[in-house]
Amino acid sequence: MSKAILLFGHGARNREYAEPFHRIKAAIQLREPDAKIEIGFLELQRPTFEEAIDALVRHGATDVRIVPIFFAPGRHVLKDLPERAALALDRYPDLNVEVADAVGMVPSVVDAMADYALGK
Amino acid sequence: MSKAILLFGHGARNREYAEPFHRIKAAIQLREPDAKIEIGFLELQRPTFEEAIDALVRHGATDVRIVPIFFAPGRHVLKDLPERAALALDRYPDLNVEVADAVGMVPSVVDAMADYALGK
Repeated sequence: MSKAILLFGHGARNREYAEPFHRIKAAIQLREPDAKIEIGFLELQRPTFEEAIDALVRHGATDVRIVPIFFAPGRHVLKDLPERAALALDRYPDLNVEVADAVGMVPSVVDAMADYALGK
Repeated sequence: MSKAILLFGHGARNREYAEPFHRIKAAIQLREPDAKIEIGFLELQRPTFEEAIDALVRHGATDVRIVPIFFAPGRHVLKDLPERAALALDRYPDLNVEVADAVGMVPSVVDAMADYALGK
């Protein structure tokens, strides 16, 4: 079965906020052309988290990995996201959901930022 | 001359917001033990951007690379940061300042996030 990934973001009023999400999505798609990938925002912007879940299920996803595109695991990641994920499971009882760590806490991502900071 | 790096962030009221900054700083320090690294926030949190600049200069920095720890280059990166950097140059006319791209736009960082999203 192909992978289903939801890139979870806060959302913002300015359009360029979504840009890195589209870059990450494109980089994933390059690696796994069959992966189903949706971007879902908590607020202020669409598609919403719920719309992203709906789209993944509609495309046949049974297992979704939710990846918080946040530097730190604050309230939005630790409280809002699990609440939204629980509501999604109410709507789709057969769906399996895995919530990954906030990307800013992931060693390989931190290493890439450190290398870049050093101009490498 | 050793490198001087300023990790620039927005700042937030919650304490955990600073966590990824400290992780990035530690990862840089591991790679280059002599690097001078300061964290500086735009608002809501200390040290401020100005305090970070002052600390770097006090430690002998003549060239500072400012790295925006932001996913997207929005107003804070494109407008607020250059303004603050210009004010710092007024205070330290001999300082050389380089503003790097927002980390969320850097291909190696995007790649690391994509790999992580795929569970690699």
